[in-house]
Amino acid sequence: MTDPFDDTYFMKRALQEAEAAFEKGEIPVGAVIVIENRIIARTHNLTELLNDVTAHAEMQAITSAANFLGGKYLNKCTLYVTLEPCQMCAGALYWSQISKIVYGASDVQRGFKTLGTTLHPKTEVVSGILAEEASALMKRFFIEKRNLN
Amino acid sequence: MTDPFDDTYFMKRALQEAEAAFEKGEIPVGAVIVIENRIIARTHNLTELLNDVTAHAEMQAITSAANFLGGKYLNKCTLYVTLEPCQMCAGALYWSQISKIVYGASDVQRGFKTLGTTLHPKTEVVSGILAEEASALMKRFFIEKRNLN
Repeated sequence: MTDPFDDTYFMKRALQEAEAAFEKGEIPVGAVIVIENRIIARTHNLTELLNDVTAHAEMQAITSAANFLGGKYLNKCTLYVTLEPCQMCAGALYWSQISKIVYGASDVQRGFKTLGTTLHPKTEVVSGILAEEASALMKRFFIEKRNLN
Repeated sequence: MTDPFDDTYFMKRALQEAEAAFEKGEIPVGAVIVIENRIIARTHNLTELLNDVTAHAEMQAITSAANFLGGKYLNKCTLYVTLEPCQMCAGALYWSQISKIVYGASDVQRGFKTLGTTLHPKTEVVSGILAEEASALMKRFFIEKRNLN
């Protein structure tokens, strides 16, 4: 029997968050943080609404998960995020000592892999989960935005 | 006549913030953001109090300054921070398009220079302003912490 709580299951939840961002006119990136198969944070990008470049989905998820856990380290947690984290978010994930990062689409321009951001040595990284869906949502967002302007 | 509002003047204000962090048992890092010689954000590290690895002085300063300005870009602003920013903070400063970063002490282990974080091409960087004072405060903090444990 396959595990119902696999990476695809949780990435679908992150994609739902990305769709919520899309509906608000935000660049559609969503994230969830999971501990022992339980979602403890669900967030999406809010940089426009909050007028704040630090309001990426991952940053909010880190704050929210730490708040839930009552401690600032996330070393038993997994982050699912629809887009490859940027330098800022990867830098925050470094401090959080998160156990695992699973992302969907790659960000070849501004992703932490291209820019060489250092993660915590204990952090495992998995990429490409539901990447096409995440990427298609991003493309749709930018096409609609261009057509509106 | 010398300019009373030089880098040392504003770094002293950032050092006062670092001292406020020290008093709260936080790693003593302070920051101010300035636009046209006016301080629009004063913050200090609150990672312990808030249980949040993202609560560095710079991150709060970016959010606070953007809130004051009513817009998320800080391209006419200067950040003064007592310690060299980390990857996360430098990544956030990249997104903010801040005009200038002035820091005091270097962080040779976890600073953005060592770790190679990319800043916005328009961002100027000045270092070493009141570096000894900032560094002495950090050392005093870690000595006192060690003696308490």
